[in-house]
Amino acid sequence: MKEDDFISTIKGQTCSIIGLGLMGGSLAAALHGMFHTIIGYDLRPEYVKIAVEKNYIDKGTSHLSEAIKEANIIVLATPMRVILNMIDEISSILPNKSIVMDLGSVKVPVVEKMQSLPDEIQIIGGHPMCGREKSGIEAVDPHLFKNAPFILTPAARTSRNTIDLLSFLIQSIGARPLILEAERHDLLVAAISHLPYLIACNLVRSAEIIALNDAELWDVASSGFRDTTRLAASNVEMSLDILLTNKDRILDMTRMFQEQLASFISLLENNDEDMLRDYLSSVQNIRKHLFVSSPT
Amino acid sequence: MKEDDFISTIKGQTCSIIGLGLMGGSLAAALHGMFHTIIGYDLRPEYVKIAVEKNYIDKGTSHLSEAIKEANIIVLATPMRVILNMIDEISSILPNKSIVMDLGSVKVPVVEKMQSLPDEIQIIGGHPMCGREKSGIEAVDPHLFKNAPFILTPAARTSRNTIDLLSFLIQSIGARPLILEAERHDLLVAAISHLPYLIACNLVRSAEIIALNDAELWDVASSGFRDTTRLAASNVEMSLDILLTNKDRILDMTRMFQEQLASFISLLENNDEDMLRDYLSSVQNIRKHLFVSSPT
Repeated sequence: MKEDDFISTIKGQTCSIIGLGLMGGSLAAALHGMFHTIIGYDLRPEYVKIAVEKNYIDKGTSHLSEAIKEANIIVLATPMRVILNMIDEISSILPNKSIVMDLGSVKVPVVEKMQSLPDEIQIIGGHPMCGREKSGIEAVDPHLFKNAPFILTPAARTSRNTIDLLSFLIQSIGARPLILEAERHDLLVAAISHLPYLIACNLVRSAEIIALNDAELWDVASSGFRDTTRLAASNVEMSLDILLTNKDRILDMTRMFQEQLASFISLLENNDEDMLRDYLSSVQNIRKHLFVSSPT
Repeated sequence: MKEDDFISTIKGQTCSIIGLGLMGGSLAAALHGMFHTIIGYDLRPEYVKIAVEKNYIDKGTSHLSEAIKEANIIVLATPMRVILNMIDEISSILPNKSIVMDLGSVKVPVVEKMQSLPDEIQIIGGHPMCGREKSGIEAVDPHLFKNAPFILTPAARTSRNTIDLLSFLIQSIGARPLILEAERHDLLVAAISHLPYLIACNLVRSAEIIALNDAELWDVASSGFRDTTRLAASNVEMSLDILLTNKDRILDMTRMFQEQLASFISLLENNDEDMLRDYLSSVQNIRKHLFVSSPT
């Protein structure tokens, strides 16, 4: 199908967003107007109320079956471990031929679990790579996905048409679709997202230990500390879900980081200026050429 | 002295900035107009030329004695180890009763070295805590110091008047003066600035190792990785100077970080969800309350 076909198809369709926090609410707001109906589901009635009032969604409900029964596309936008339970819960009430996508940060357990859904259901994992240090419906931003990578992890049974339709939707909200296998996704995000989070937390903790004896430490903190530790302000439950569901890959990455850090330390202990210079220059060179086109 | 006295005093004075890179050039540009004359020194004639053309300084030279002979305030804004050599070099040519300050990122070795200057010279260490991932005169920005902490590390012989004058100048360029002993400064910046730099470098290195097998890693990188690793793009020679001159404190901090990271890892290995939640919540709480008033 081509773009025009997608546009006219979804004009008559219903998209249900399950969970109206930062990600789900922002996706609803970004997609609003492209579908015939956007339905928003959240257990918290006040979230549903706000989402309707702010025009993020056309209809809202706190009843899962009501949210799903007429949907063509269902997006699971709850925390990771709720997604895993929800897949069981919705299995018997999904409309025939509907598409189920999630927005969880770890893909192997979700895509595996989705295999249990009826064969005629199209399944695909989704992961928008954008800011997560704020959360809740108050933080909703329809422009959240602009210029961000948005990863799709299809299963073997996912059709070309489903992949193309989702890629189209992702481009429509200003993001960059990237198709990866779930395993590969989980390894790459462990390196690029989960390890940095865990490191940011440990930097704050280390600084805190110094601050126990000298509270003026925080007055000295400047933009360098601010940026390096920004991820440590991320939502705790969401982060905990990620750590526990992608545990093995995160542990592998962290051990590798520990080895790198240990070799760096011995270069410094030995005053090995030439090796340190090579190391820092190589890293600087890599970092300087990343993100050159995106705003800083 | 009061503010008005400082203003009228420096209106008749000469301030010499030694080194016209990012820090020195930006300081010259920020102070320009407040002094009778701002003299800029740099070994590179093209830097001197640009600084005059762009009106950062009133006069420029590549001869150290010419830059210093009539100065009331001399600011050493070269890399750390050049500062240490330069203190010896200028010792015999400093005008009587002039004030010598530096802008190096490590203060103990500088303030110790400054003790060798003649008794009638006022000495004080300075450290503006602002961005350093760009460098050179092209990166000069008179607003660089706005809202940043600017630490002063006086020696025992530094007069109250010198401290007050420098604090006044720091406030005039929009920064926040903070008076600390040199030792305390070096410990605090090891925790808040030097360790984060070294960690950012090791995060880039760890990601690079994954990217050797899967270059798509870099396409997945988003704002989280961008911010956490921003410091890794810092100037290498400057960073190397910092690592080597503040080595012992940086090593202590890094070992403490390694211990924290190791305890975190064992919580994760043991699936200790409650302890992980406590840890992440406490860190999140600290980080959320930092920088609340500054722009992000």
